[in-house]
Amino acid sequence: MATGTTAPASLSELQSSYDALTARGLKLDLTRGKPSLAQLDLSGALLDLPLSVEHTAADGTDVRNYGGSDGLPEMRAIFGDLLGIPVEQLLALGNASLNVMHDVIVHALLHGVPGTAGSDKTIPWRDEQIAFLCPSPGYDRHFAITEHLGIRMIPLPYLDGGRLDLVAIAEHLKDPSVRGMWLVPLYANPGGQIVTVEEAQALVSLPAAPDFRIFWDNAYAVHHLTSDEKPAIDVLGLAAAAGTPDRPLVFASTSKITQAGAGVSFFGASPANIAWYRLHASVQTIGPDKVNQLRHARFLESADGVRAHMRKHRELLAPKFATVERILAERLTGHATWTTPLGGYFVTLTAPHGTATRAVELAKAAGIAVTPAGAAFPYSEDPDDALIRIAPSFPSLDDLEAAIDGLCSCVLLAEADAAEK
Amino acid sequence: MATGTTAPASLSELQSSYDALTARGLKLDLTRGKPSLAQLDLSGALLDLPLSVEHTAADGTDVRNYGGSDGLPEMRAIFGDLLGIPVEQLLALGNASLNVMHDVIVHALLHGVPGTAGSDKTIPWRDEQIAFLCPSPGYDRHFAITEHLGIRMIPLPYLDGGRLDLVAIAEHLKDPSVRGMWLVPLYANPGGQIVTVEEAQALVSLPAAPDFRIFWDNAYAVHHLTSDEKPAIDVLGLAAAAGTPDRPLVFASTSKITQAGAGVSFFGASPANIAWYRLHASVQTIGPDKVNQLRHARFLESADGVRAHMRKHRELLAPKFATVERILAERLTGHATWTTPLGGYFVTLTAPHGTATRAVELAKAAGIAVTPAGAAFPYSEDPDDALIRIAPSFPSLDDLEAAIDGLCSCVLLAEADAAEK
Repeated sequence: MATGTTAPASLSELQSSYDALTARGLKLDLTRGKPSLAQLDLSGALLDLPLSVEHTAADGTDVRNYGGSDGLPEMRAIFGDLLGIPVEQLLALGNASLNVMHDVIVHALLHGVPGTAGSDKTIPWRDEQIAFLCPSPGYDRHFAITEHLGIRMIPLPYLDGGRLDLVAIAEHLKDPSVRGMWLVPLYANPGGQIVTVEEAQALVSLPAAPDFRIFWDNAYAVHHLTSDEKPAIDVLGLAAAAGTPDRPLVFASTSKITQAGAGVSFFGASPANIAWYRLHASVQTIGPDKVNQLRHARFLESADGVRAHMRKHRELLAPKFATVERILAERLTGHATWTTPLGGYFVTLTAPHGTATRAVELAKAAGIAVTPAGAAFPYSEDPDDALIRIAPSFPSLDDLEAAIDGLCSCVLLAEADAAEK
Repeated sequence: MATGTTAPASLSELQSSYDALTARGLKLDLTRGKPSLAQLDLSGALLDLPLSVEHTAADGTDVRNYGGSDGLPEMRAIFGDLLGIPVEQLLALGNASLNVMHDVIVHALLHGVPGTAGSDKTIPWRDEQIAFLCPSPGYDRHFAITEHLGIRMIPLPYLDGGRLDLVAIAEHLKDPSVRGMWLVPLYANPGGQIVTVEEAQALVSLPAAPDFRIFWDNAYAVHHLTSDEKPAIDVLGLAAAAGTPDRPLVFASTSKITQAGAGVSFFGASPANIAWYRLHASVQTIGPDKVNQLRHARFLESADGVRAHMRKHRELLAPKFATVERILAERLTGHATWTTPLGGYFVTLTAPHGTATRAVELAKAAGIAVTPAGAAFPYSEDPDDALIRIAPSFPSLDDLEAAIDGLCSCVLLAEADAAEK
């Protein structure tokens, strides 16, 4: 967070500046955490690997044919290493971890999960009114799944400094209808928060319903913006030691490692949860695309291969985040605060309370697309109407400078507008 | 169907013959409709296409990044042509049409489908006890989905000559709990039946619940075993003309055209159903793998490209089906009947009633794996215990000869065993 002061500008000066901005006819997009073309080019060799002759996986599987619903052993080994999960507890699946999260919740709604009511019997979640804890701000697509499937969302504001509110969580978990909790443990979308080992330990230890599940979406497990390459927390090991082995469900993917729409997703969990997932997936699908998995395994080679590859992403991404921070400091010091994330894909800007919606509208009218205000909150309700999510990855540096500078003008104008009223 | 007589053999002769078979220590597999290695090799060039530079779809989409949940326009155009479906009513999706069928049913269970109760309001199917009509024998994975999701299955035996029992269907459709019907319209799995235009016309015209859906799984739409390359029935057009535009849901895939585990699936339906699917899929997924779709579009090129490619498959498959028929005629004439399919992936053998389970057991003990008896029926219940499904595609011709010849010995021994009792 950064604060300070700059010389104030009058409303008419800000309006003139904004009018000049709109006159430029910009068409810039800061909405989604999309890799840039240069980032996608880093994995160009993956797209060119000839597989017509060498189409056999390490275990002898012909990847072109049916079979192999767990995914290729070599992909499970590479990401088991990175995520700290034994290979037998990690499945390599289709092109989107979001899809796996959705399907896991659907399976739970229709069939229940292992350990319901402390027994082997499972009770479909849909037969009850259930709720999910939603650390907020959070990932809009998580909240979209929850809302779409009729699950009540309980907003759970982060404490200052990005800490989880463990007292509030403990209180909520006394309610047996609370069956799920979303969590991006490293470099959270959009706030950049980092769950500590102590927090993870508490999350797997707190008393809760026997079928309470933590949706541990490690989307940015290896997406560091600094040289401090934090290892993944062994949440499954912590849970097993705490006697709640089935509580965490771990998700990850290569979407922001290789190709955003054509990667490989991962699902890690206890042996009981893996068996449960296999049972339902065996009816749902013929198995994941093993050809794409073999491409990935050949290209990435090993956990160290992934780490080296991610450093190339960092070289492209870090200057963009630095640019955002520089312009925000130049333009908004004293007016707003913002995060300085150590990884992941987002900067969050906290505008003066009650001005985010207006600032985003102004930006849109000036040709600068930003995620709708409120989107990072359950039911799209930002209690302060203050948070603006910035995704710096996709635009070029020049476009990014223009977009952030323009956005700052909008924030200042919205602030001055509000002060007038 | 073929019938006739051969010289009878004694039980002891058959037992000796079977003992000699088991002594050979065979390890042959006739269970699943898997393409052979030579068939997979037909699409080798698809696996070798370099995409790192040319990664842009016809509409300008960079296939490597997020976005594009409908699938690539060029793939939708190629298969729209083959299936007789307007591009705007056909989506190109992930690597398995089975997955799409499962998910469509799940969306219907959780949310209902358009047109429920004749209005815009949708009633989740799961809130009622619903049933599906299941033409039998049928595809075991269809029945597995239905049973797993708690939907009652109503077996619907085909009439002699492979015709649908439209009288029975009309009667069943008077029951408003009947919401679905499975159907493989061309070269049905496993019986090879072909739905006629008149039957399709009747199916979309019969009175039924407003949210009744026909799961029109056109899995073998271009998988002809003869030069009679039947065009796809325009079931969506027939339904629209009959005033039931939302009734058919069309599924297809390239699984047995290119790579069995790494193809592209298709979903075709009315505009209302497509909008409904998009709504639910937009929450479930970030969209299908567009890289793989672009590979397919470049490799297949056009509908005529697909047709030409399928003729190469036919050259590999037709001799295998001929071999099966030849051996069955030599060994089982007068003892059993069998289908002579004009396309698709299966031959069904109708053994003497009450002997299929025993024959399949004997085959298994002799190292010849055949789909479990009964698997082609809802709840795995073959009322006659007679049907044996044979999948000739995967083994080499030599292995196939050995397997079918061995299977015939098992059928004859099971028949003689039964006659003794």
